[in-house]
Amino acid sequence: MTVQTVAWAPSGALRILDQTLLPVEERYLDLETVEAVIEAIRSLRVRGAPAIGVAAAMGLVSSLRRSFHAPREAFLAVVEDGAQRIAAARPTAVNLGWAMERMQRVARATQGEAAAIFETLLQEAQAIWREDAAMCRAMGEHGQVVMKKRGVKGERGEAGEKGEKGEKGEKGEIRVLTHCNAGALATGGIGTALGVIYTAVERGKRVHVYADETRPLLQGSRLTAWELSKAGIPYTVLPDSAAASLLARGDVDLVLVGADRVARNGDTANKVGTYPLAIAAHRHAIPFYVVAPTTSFDPSCPTGNEIPIEQRGAAEVTHPLGRQAAPEGSAVFNPAFDVTPAELVAGYVTEKGILRPPFGPP
Amino acid sequence: MTVQTVAWAPSGALRILDQTLLPVEERYLDLETVEAVIEAIRSLRVRGAPAIGVAAAMGLVSSLRRSFHAPREAFLAVVEDGAQRIAAARPTAVNLGWAMERMQRVARATQGEAAAIFETLLQEAQAIWREDAAMCRAMGEHGQVVMKKRGVKGERGEAGEKGEKGEKGEKGEIRVLTHCNAGALATGGIGTALGVIYTAVERGKRVHVYADETRPLLQGSRLTAWELSKAGIPYTVLPDSAAASLLARGDVDLVLVGADRVARNGDTANKVGTYPLAIAAHRHAIPFYVVAPTTSFDPSCPTGNEIPIEQRGAAEVTHPLGRQAAPEGSAVFNPAFDVTPAELVAGYVTEKGILRPPFGPP
Repeated sequence: MTVQTVAWAPSGALRILDQTLLPVEERYLDLETVEAVIEAIRSLRVRGAPAIGVAAAMGLVSSLRRSFHAPREAFLAVVEDGAQRIAAARPTAVNLGWAMERMQRVARATQGEAAAIFETLLQEAQAIWREDAAMCRAMGEHGQVVMKKRGVKGERGEAGEKGEKGEKGEKGEIRVLTHCNAGALATGGIGTALGVIYTAVERGKRVHVYADETRPLLQGSRLTAWELSKAGIPYTVLPDSAAASLLARGDVDLVLVGADRVARNGDTANKVGTYPLAIAAHRHAIPFYVVAPTTSFDPSCPTGNEIPIEQRGAAEVTHPLGRQAAPEGSAVFNPAFDVTPAELVAGYVTEKGILRPPFGPP
Repeated sequence: MTVQTVAWAPSGALRILDQTLLPVEERYLDLETVEAVIEAIRSLRVRGAPAIGVAAAMGLVSSLRRSFHAPREAFLAVVEDGAQRIAAARPTAVNLGWAMERMQRVARATQGEAAAIFETLLQEAQAIWREDAAMCRAMGEHGQVVMKKRGVKGERGEAGEKGEKGEKGEKGEIRVLTHCNAGALATGGIGTALGVIYTAVERGKRVHVYADETRPLLQGSRLTAWELSKAGIPYTVLPDSAAASLLARGDVDLVLVGADRVARNGDTANKVGTYPLAIAAHRHAIPFYVVAPTTSFDPSCPTGNEIPIEQRGAAEVTHPLGRQAAPEGSAVFNPAFDVTPAELVAGYVTEKGILRPPFGPP
C-alpha cells in the first residue's frame, strides 16, 4: 500500500494526510502542537480508531520537542497535560484514551531528565505505530477464514439462492459490503476490514467491494473508494440506504466493518449506519463481521449502553460538501456512531484470531 | 398550505415549482411541450408519485394547445403519442401510467373535433388534480387513527419503555419519522404522509417530525424540511443511516411514508431507504404505515418482485450537489426505489380508509 496516513516529517513533526480533502486533493499537514493535533482529530483530518490512537501518540511527541530542555517534573506535567487534552478530543474511539494512557504511563516510569523521557516517548509512539501495522497484518491473515462466497445451498432465507446471480458479481468473486472507511487511512497499517480484503487479493482471491458512501462525511465514497482505486481493487459506491436492496438481491457474500469501541459483551460502536446495516444483513442471513484490533476493545465497558456516542454539528448534515441542502436553522440529529448489538455480529476478527464475547481484560 | 406544486400558468401552460432548486431558490417553470414535461419528470423538477400523475395530465394538455386545429384523427394521434411518451418518462410510479391511460381513454371516448376533445382533456386533467387534492384530504382524515403516541406499556420490546424519554420529544408530542418527501410537493394537495401530519396539527395535536435527509437527492432535507418550516411544524433532519439510532432510543412513535407503487400483496415500492427503515422499525416494534392514494396501487402487479425499479445515474452519488465526492470513474449502485415487503407494513392509509392486503382491482 502506498497510502501513508501518518508519518514523521523530516522536522520530527507528525505528518498526516488531510483526509477532509480526499479524493479531490492529496495534501499533507505537519502538526507541531497539541492544539493542531486536537484540531486534526476533531475535524477528521485524521480518523479511524486505530489511526487516531497512533496519530495521538506521534502528535504528542511532536508537540514535546519544544519542551525538551525543561526540568523533569515540568516536562512530565507538559506530557500529562498534552496527553489528557488530546485524549478528550473525541469521546467514542477507545484507542485514543488507550494510547494517551500508555504514553503517560511510560513517561512516569522512565528515569532521568526530559531528554531521556522524550526519547522513550518517541520510541513508544513508534512502537504503537509499528504494533498497529502488525495487528493489521495479523487481522488480514485471520480474516481469510471468513473471506469466502456464501454457499448457494444450505443458507437460510431466500437470498441464499441468489448467491451467484448478482449484477456485478462474476462467478467466483467474493462480494464484500463495507461501511465508512476501515482501511489504510483508518490505521497505521493496511487497515482492519479493508486489510482483510487487501490480504485476500494478495493471496489471489477475486474480490468486489461494495462501499457504502457513509453520510454525512462520505468516508466511504471519498476514502474507501479512493483507497481501493489506488489498490486496483474493483468497487461500487452506493448510498447507505441502498445497501438493504443489495442484500435483498443476494449480491453480497459478507459484510466487514471496523469498530471504534467494542464493549465486553460484544456490542460494537462504529460509524453511524453500521447498526441498520447489521439489522438488514441479519434479515438476509448475510454474515456480518467486525474487524478490529484488541486496542479497540474496552473491557471496562460492560455493554454498548455505556459507550459514549459523539454528537456532531448540524452543518455536516445541512451543508454537505459546503452546499446548503436544508432550510436555515434546521434542527439536526447527527450522532457520529451507533451501537450494533453483539447478537447481530457473526464474529470479531482481531490480531489474535476470530474471537467471540464476552471479552475479558487482556 | 401555500406550497403550489403544480398550477396553470395564465398562458394555459403547466406551471411547476422546480424542486431541484429548493430550499435555496423558489423558482417556477412553465412547461409547454411533451419534451419539457418529460425532462421535468426525469430530472425530478416535479416528483412524487401523485404529483407526477397530475403534472403528466396537465402537461399533456399544455402540449396539446398547439395541435388544437388539427383534424380529429390527427389530434387523437398527437394525444396518444404524447401520453405514451410521457408515461415512459419514469418506470416505477404507477400514477404516471394510470393518468396517461385515463387521458387517452377519455380522448377516444369523446365525440367531435379536436377542440371538443381538448376541452374534455382539460376538464379531465383538472379532475385528476382536484381528485388528488381531495384524496390527500381524505388520507389526512383517515390517518388520524394512527397518529398517536406509542403506549409506554403494552408494547413489545424494550424500546416501548422509553416512549416518553426522547431527547427532542416533549411529553404528549407525537414523534413521526418519515423518509423522502410525501408532502404537498409530492402531490396535487396537502400530501400523503405529510398530509396526515398537517391534518393532525390542524386538529390541535402536537407533532415533531424526524425527516430522513434521503440520499442521494436529499428530498428529506431539501423538500420535507422546507415544507415543514413553511408550515411552522417542528422538525429534525437526520442522515438516513441515523434513523435506526433514533428508533433504538425510543424517540419515535410511528413511521409514515408514501409509496410509488403498491403491489396486490401489499409489497410497496418507495424511495430507496424505505426498506431498511421498515426493517429497523420492525426490530424496535415501531408501527410503520404506508400512506398512499389508491391511484398508487397496482392490482396488476402481484408482488414487489414485478415492480420495475428505476436505476439512476452515477453522478447523483459521486457528485452530491455538484461537488466531487468519489474518485473519477467509480462504479455506482443507485436504485431510485426499494421494495418493502408487506409483512413489515402495519397498515395502508388510503383515501378509502386504512386498508390491508390483498388489494384487488378497484
